[in-house]
Amino acid sequence: MEYKNLDTVSSFKDLKKLNPYNVKCNINKKRIEKYQITEGGGLTYSYATMPVDETHIETFQEMADECQVIEKYKAILNGERMNTGENRLVLHQLTRGQILKDVVADGENKGDFYKEQLERIRLFSDKVRNGEIVGSTGKKFKKVVQIGIGGSDLGPRALYLALRGYCLGKEQQVIEADFISNVDPDDVANVTKDLDFEETLFILVSKSGTTQETLTNRDLVLQALKSTNIEGFDSKKHMIAVTSKTSPLASSEDVLDAFFIDDYIGGRYSSTSAVGGAILSIAFGFDVFEELLLGAHEVDVKSLHPNVLENPALLDALIGVYLRNVLGLPSTAVLPYSQALSRFPAHLQQLDMESNGKTVNRDKQRVSYHTGPVIFGEPGTNGQHSFYQLLHQGTDTVPLQFIGFKKSQFEKDIVTDNSTSQAKLNANLAAQIVAFALGKNDENPNKVFEGNRYSSLLLADQLTPKTLGALLSHFENKVMFQGFIWNLNSFDQEGVQLGKLLAKKVLSGCDGDEVLKAYADMI
Amino acid sequence: MEYKNLDTVSSFKDLKKLNPYNVKCNINKKRIEKYQITEGGGLTYSYATMPVDETHIETFQEMADECQVIEKYKAILNGERMNTGENRLVLHQLTRGQILKDVVADGENKGDFYKEQLERIRLFSDKVRNGEIVGSTGKKFKKVVQIGIGGSDLGPRALYLALRGYCLGKEQQVIEADFISNVDPDDVANVTKDLDFEETLFILVSKSGTTQETLTNRDLVLQALKSTNIEGFDSKKHMIAVTSKTSPLASSEDVLDAFFIDDYIGGRYSSTSAVGGAILSIAFGFDVFEELLLGAHEVDVKSLHPNVLENPALLDALIGVYLRNVLGLPSTAVLPYSQALSRFPAHLQQLDMESNGKTVNRDKQRVSYHTGPVIFGEPGTNGQHSFYQLLHQGTDTVPLQFIGFKKSQFEKDIVTDNSTSQAKLNANLAAQIVAFALGKNDENPNKVFEGNRYSSLLLADQLTPKTLGALLSHFENKVMFQGFIWNLNSFDQEGVQLGKLLAKKVLSGCDGDEVLKAYADMI
Repeated sequence: MEYKNLDTVSSFKDLKKLNPYNVKCNINKKRIEKYQITEGGGLTYSYATMPVDETHIETFQEMADECQVIEKYKAILNGERMNTGENRLVLHQLTRGQILKDVVADGENKGDFYKEQLERIRLFSDKVRNGEIVGSTGKKFKKVVQIGIGGSDLGPRALYLALRGYCLGKEQQVIEADFISNVDPDDVANVTKDLDFEETLFILVSKSGTTQETLTNRDLVLQALKSTNIEGFDSKKHMIAVTSKTSPLASSEDVLDAFFIDDYIGGRYSSTSAVGGAILSIAFGFDVFEELLLGAHEVDVKSLHPNVLENPALLDALIGVYLRNVLGLPSTAVLPYSQALSRFPAHLQQLDMESNGKTVNRDKQRVSYHTGPVIFGEPGTNGQHSFYQLLHQGTDTVPLQFIGFKKSQFEKDIVTDNSTSQAKLNANLAAQIVAFALGKNDENPNKVFEGNRYSSLLLADQLTPKTLGALLSHFENKVMFQGFIWNLNSFDQEGVQLGKLLAKKVLSGCDGDEVLKAYADMI
Repeated sequence: MEYKNLDTVSSFKDLKKLNPYNVKCNINKKRIEKYQITEGGGLTYSYATMPVDETHIETFQEMADECQVIEKYKAILNGERMNTGENRLVLHQLTRGQILKDVVADGENKGDFYKEQLERIRLFSDKVRNGEIVGSTGKKFKKVVQIGIGGSDLGPRALYLALRGYCLGKEQQVIEADFISNVDPDDVANVTKDLDFEETLFILVSKSGTTQETLTNRDLVLQALKSTNIEGFDSKKHMIAVTSKTSPLASSEDVLDAFFIDDYIGGRYSSTSAVGGAILSIAFGFDVFEELLLGAHEVDVKSLHPNVLENPALLDALIGVYLRNVLGLPSTAVLPYSQALSRFPAHLQQLDMESNGKTVNRDKQRVSYHTGPVIFGEPGTNGQHSFYQLLHQGTDTVPLQFIGFKKSQFEKDIVTDNSTSQAKLNANLAAQIVAFALGKNDENPNKVFEGNRYSSLLLADQLTPKTLGALLSHFENKVMFQGFIWNLNSFDQEGVQLGKLLAKKVLSGCDGDEVLKAYADMI
């Protein structure tokens, strides 16, 4: 396999010569019908309002071939050390099912290892949900609280919020979840205030078992537990760990049980491992988590297709590269038309910006082109009443990634003004796509919308565990493909190390109160 | 007063000639001590790691004078029609206290009007909190749910979350609040699931009384209320309105009471009016809301100072213009080191992007320079484990707006590894500021941090109602000053109209399920 910087890819030079397709002047029903492709897991990817036509698509195909992106993806699936920065395998896709050959590392079959952990989660979560495993004073667990930060927080939290309504709507048993992440002591105080500890199970999540925030928050929680003075209360029976086998937490006497991940699952890619699996299975039932894995796996399989028109994650990635490196657009907004996806943009923000927000390529050479964009977003219709003003009429073009569903989760709806709320929601979604694309002329320049503000749409019938898993995997694979095209290692995160290091120096040098006066004496 | 486009301002031409000050090579304790100024309401604004020195500051002063920003602010305070788009006054500062002359409009003294509404909120919220006003079945209200969208949601929600821990920490009575905003029917279903309607008071917030989302959600809530079949239950006694006097809601028989705003308070500036006042006073007590107003008022007064070194909101605004229009940086991250401020960046996103995300100046002419940037952010330390990778090592520079506090809200803390959690939080904050500014060299290019990634810091002793009000007003006034400099009308939002209009057309033409197939037949 050959690794090339983007500026040495000859088909990219062709792409740079292509003008953006004028969506505003050429959008019609036929184009909309033609420019949509089927993604795995029940998703449709629609890109009729992106500034590309058949010439662009042909060039994308040449770029995909020339950059050998499918070969590189296969190398990941086959367990090659594609995380060059940390010299590690990249195995998050394997947590949702094997696609190519068996991956053996550290003397074990990794597929079997992940399956074993999954089976252990199934057994454990079933027992918690049916009352076989109870708290130390005999009460059933009614609440689960995850203590973790970054990938151990954002993904699981986004997925929990995304599926809560679905499960409640189906009248399934839901064990409510909460999350503690920030080293800010108010985070623990806020979540544990009025918590019934007898009915609460904590999940401590840290791959290394040494994350400062997470261990500090565990200690704060343990102190709160101790101060309850409940007779017979035993904090060990209220805490499980998700960690690597070699971490100090793995063999801790202070936890009821431990579920394992390994160094081949990056934090931001860990939602489909035990990091997301334990809490989602306890909260909603293992079958719900299994469906999520199925949706993700379907997209993983679909992402193997070498034809860009059969591979939505790859096409999405290539369009993104065109927007970023040819049209020079520095940010992208993620706009889910579903309140349940309220924290999904925050998860994608981590996934994308931590993976591809880099200046050095996989061979540790500086690149001379732009890499990962700024990612932000909020659910629609809320965002329409907020930052859409800039998206419509600001001086910069921000590409938009819409997400929509035909049905609501609860399916509790009413008709007002001749339409349901869900119809209103989707009318707004369709109207926004068209408004951004077509714009509008007006005699009053204040009411002029220029149009040609580009968007794509991922659409499903309903936000279910399966479509959610598919969405998750679509974006993971999009980010992976873009990393290949930019010739980055998308799987390390050296950029987070310096701040950590300096913070430790500050801590050993001063007490933190004086610290901000002179930025900790410049450390 | 003269209104000039930025590219015709002669001192701006001087500014464009100034190179960015090299923070990385010149930062030292003396500079940090010198480059901080006192903001109202207990805040300090520190800008030592911004790429400016005394020459820049002098030019900023010339720009402020030449653009007559203080005169324009005075015109707002004096009730001139500064919202040129809608031909309206701009009176949000008046909701927290009068500064200049009496403002009379529509035949009434507006200061008296806002004070009257404030007094009515005081009386009503006291009665709810002490149990004089109870639900229709005689139960005390234990929950308050605001139904509103955009400015009626983001600001009040951010402020509620910001002060909940403060009040709980002080053992004050807290009536828990929740919010319904999205037209997505799952938003109502999720919030009302398991809600005890007998103990719940709803606040319906819509200035016009015609907001589609809000009325639809009210109807969904009313349907849920009806279906409870509780004997003696009367939904009218469970709902109040915040609206304008002329709206259909003002005289509705279906609400217990109505509190008024007017057309001179834009949604995104309405948190200090009845829109934020009713819910915050009910949740935390009127005295808490009053303190918030006091902090905001102090900053409003401070913002009148013509000297940029005595006016942090103005200096912040000018630095922002330098970053945007001279250095060409298209986005800004807001990074509060406080979990309680989890939704404050979302509020600022609306405030800034909806106010200044515009291409047409106040005289309806297109401008040829960049205006409002993309705003995004999440609390630290969480963000450190997420998108900070790109901020440190990405190919683009993103200016950073840090916010910090010396003390936590609950003040429940423990010492682990020789430091409290709050000390760790602030050590991280100081370390990040320094890491971004100084960077780090390394033999391994993957571990190189370039430095000169610019930031500023707003610091207070604790996140209290007063410092929160000051923070809110600091950013409101910063955005206002930038609007003056860019020669925009920051107080209308024509960019949100087209989508609304098209959505209504879609609704009358199809049922919403087919809609997405061909983007509602192009409307």
